[in-house]
Amino acid sequence: MSQTTQNNQTRKAEENSISPAAKQQQLQQQLTPVYKAIDTGQEASVIKLINSLHPAEIAFLIESLPDEEQRDKIWKLVAIEHKGETLNHLNDYIRAQFIEDMPTSELVVTARDMDHDDLADLLPDLPEVVTRILLQSMESQHRKRLESVLSYDEDTAGGLMNTDTISIRADITLETVMRYLRFLGHIPDTTDNLMVVNYEGIYQGVLYLSDLLTHDPELYVSSVMNSDLHGINASTDKTEVAALFERRDLITAPVVDDNGYLLGRITIDDIVDVIRDEGEHTFMSQAGLSEEDDMFAPVLTSSKRRAVWLGVNLLTALLASLVIGLFQPTIEKVVALAVLMPIVASMGGIAGSQTLTLVIRGMALGQLSDKNYRSLMFKELSVSFLNGMLWAVVLAVISGIWFSNETLALVIGIAIIINLLVAAFSGVAIPLLLDKFGADPALAGGVFLTTVTDVIGFFAFLGLASVMLL
Amino acid sequence: MSQTTQNNQTRKAEENSISPAAKQQQLQQQLTPVYKAIDTGQEASVIKLINSLHPAEIAFLIESLPDEEQRDKIWKLVAIEHKGETLNHLNDYIRAQFIEDMPTSELVVTARDMDHDDLADLLPDLPEVVTRILLQSMESQHRKRLESVLSYDEDTAGGLMNTDTISIRADITLETVMRYLRFLGHIPDTTDNLMVVNYEGIYQGVLYLSDLLTHDPELYVSSVMNSDLHGINASTDKTEVAALFERRDLITAPVVDDNGYLLGRITIDDIVDVIRDEGEHTFMSQAGLSEEDDMFAPVLTSSKRRAVWLGVNLLTALLASLVIGLFQPTIEKVVALAVLMPIVASMGGIAGSQTLTLVIRGMALGQLSDKNYRSLMFKELSVSFLNGMLWAVVLAVISGIWFSNETLALVIGIAIIINLLVAAFSGVAIPLLLDKFGADPALAGGVFLTTVTDVIGFFAFLGLASVMLL
Repeated sequence: MSQTTQNNQTRKAEENSISPAAKQQQLQQQLTPVYKAIDTGQEASVIKLINSLHPAEIAFLIESLPDEEQRDKIWKLVAIEHKGETLNHLNDYIRAQFIEDMPTSELVVTARDMDHDDLADLLPDLPEVVTRILLQSMESQHRKRLESVLSYDEDTAGGLMNTDTISIRADITLETVMRYLRFLGHIPDTTDNLMVVNYEGIYQGVLYLSDLLTHDPELYVSSVMNSDLHGINASTDKTEVAALFERRDLITAPVVDDNGYLLGRITIDDIVDVIRDEGEHTFMSQAGLSEEDDMFAPVLTSSKRRAVWLGVNLLTALLASLVIGLFQPTIEKVVALAVLMPIVASMGGIAGSQTLTLVIRGMALGQLSDKNYRSLMFKELSVSFLNGMLWAVVLAVISGIWFSNETLALVIGIAIIINLLVAAFSGVAIPLLLDKFGADPALAGGVFLTTVTDVIGFFAFLGLASVMLL
Repeated sequence: MSQTTQNNQTRKAEENSISPAAKQQQLQQQLTPVYKAIDTGQEASVIKLINSLHPAEIAFLIESLPDEEQRDKIWKLVAIEHKGETLNHLNDYIRAQFIEDMPTSELVVTARDMDHDDLADLLPDLPEVVTRILLQSMESQHRKRLESVLSYDEDTAGGLMNTDTISIRADITLETVMRYLRFLGHIPDTTDNLMVVNYEGIYQGVLYLSDLLTHDPELYVSSVMNSDLHGINASTDKTEVAALFERRDLITAPVVDDNGYLLGRITIDDIVDVIRDEGEHTFMSQAGLSEEDDMFAPVLTSSKRRAVWLGVNLLTALLASLVIGLFQPTIEKVVALAVLMPIVASMGGIAGSQTLTLVIRGMALGQLSDKNYRSLMFKELSVSFLNGMLWAVVLAVISGIWFSNETLALVIGIAIIINLLVAAFSGVAIPLLLDKFGADPALAGGVFLTTVTDVIGFFAFLGLASVMLL
């Protein structure tokens, strides 16, 4: 029962890991022996510890090391057969550094045994000499396959595909298929079906392994195969492919060219990465960061990237300041306006970002169309109007009491309603416009929205005050 | 070649769908015939169109209809065998409405044929009478299995699991396994392995279908099975399970109880949903929304939810106003301060949200631990210091020229540096603290951060001005 004991131990570590804090603890448990081994110079045990991990876990471990020297040390200890896949799991910055430091011969050995889709992702980062040696050393069949993956953008089905398909003809019996598989002796990871092609290599359908195993071996492939699963064109965008996998609960799907010729297959593990990256991308771009941003990249690298975003936002803030500047004489007379004006701007910003978030999500899911965006606009304006009324009253009461000025109370109330309506309108219109012009709403939407709600917020509030209070 | 023609048509729709705009168009293409059929009263063709879709696609279609009446109309036309799974794909709000309107008998029929993990998710939303009838009408074996899923929280491995495992013993030959499978005549969807258990039902390992197909049929299961895949304890949190699937590229994994007894299995399609939901949750909670928020929920429902978030943010804004209020006499004398102060606050907010985003991501990935957060804090403070210096100079120059006041230029420069350092510190400290106290950093982090950068920004700028300018 040593199996069960082992299971129990694994389980101990996995139990109760509900919060990030627990995850951190778990990670630390993993790291502690590695650190200890490094500190005491026990290279042998570090090597053993590291190479017992999955390449994704090695990458994860390296990324959580803040110290560059420690990263390099660990990297040198990773077994060469794990290096390729580990490189693919590392973020761009660390990967580039490691590749720079690796000798050509090591890079060639590392890359040689990788899956074609993974290798295709890595190739653009490799020195040209390595790429040349690699392509020359490959069998012509392998090279052709790799080149077919390379010819597609990495954001398309062609760039995601693996070329390790097992293809069969429709006019053979299941018995023959089973003999063929036993002859091959190996089925690639993540295979739930065999691809059925005709004599020209045109995709016809799939034979699920489960159907192969449950049907009479005398039957022909043609009568058991499934032709409902259409081939995905190699130029299809990867987010579209991911949506298809999600909606149809697919494990693998065939990739075909414009003529229906079978090129390869896409597997769910790559789709999981696409979905994870999409989520990260949306989340990170809101703060002007990329999903490749490294927690422990050098200070100068990070500073430069972030400076750009701060600069863009400074322009926004300066625009708002220009608007305030127009009303300096008014503020000089009623200084309470300076005290209250940030509230008007910030309420607009919050309400607008709620609408913006909903719209960006709806667009990403493809649920927002020309057919229904009017309804959404109407709804968002209604919601903002109701909330505007509510918070106008609350703020009017607070301001009226604070500064004993009823007109001021009226001014802030009206300004809040105006700004919330503008916020709702912009929250719907800005992402739709950005998308029309090919910009990423998740990246630029927030900046544009804040500009509008700040400018309109200050202008409405101070403008009304100039008219009504002076 | 009608197969190929069909493929070509599918491909046409899938091609070039790179931007959300293209997705919208595609959706619209799907919707147009349905709308047309509704408008012209051709119920028969609507029924045919809708029921040719996958339940996830039906749910997607319904969610993008803004009009409640239209939703109801479409829902009535969905075939009863699709209703169960469609309900599971709909968001909480629409699902609750549909269930409310369905007669008991229809609900029972709908729920009867669902997968146990899906049914377990739906049960809490069903009227008690339906649940009772369902449980009574089930075979005792089915009921027991369903109850075992129900006994676990839906956020755990137990709640995610399916009970449709095929389990075998280790002491039989592959030939026997294949005969058994042919006898069963059906292998559940998303099955890449059979579970090997001992005579007590204790999990021992898995036999991959690919190994079953490529090895000598005379061999025993024990010599071909894989015991490296450990059982996942049923109480493991679902995000932990998802991380395991991602790191190990799993398709299915066994779920066991504390004694190692095999309870069921988790399939990758449910993990894809977990990953998608996690991403949505983080994205939506930043704006105080939940991933269940419906674009087309009634105005009042949405208004109430959003009012809460606006209220929380109003408190933040009021706090900032109180700080400004302290310096009214200063502003009265130097009204330029009112013009420039939003810049100081907003630069702090932007810089802080960059750090916050990075930290929340690091925490979600489990890469941030007690071991390395000091390095991160040091790095973020350094980045902020460099950017603080840069933008302090830029802003000092702009302000100095704008208001021809060198001391004012000095004041805003110092204030920017102070606020950017505070922003970096808060960006690291706030999410860590929130997590320690069990709060969700993605939900509350932004509010707390803005409070700090607003209050400190205004205080530093106006305070320094009071000392240095008057």
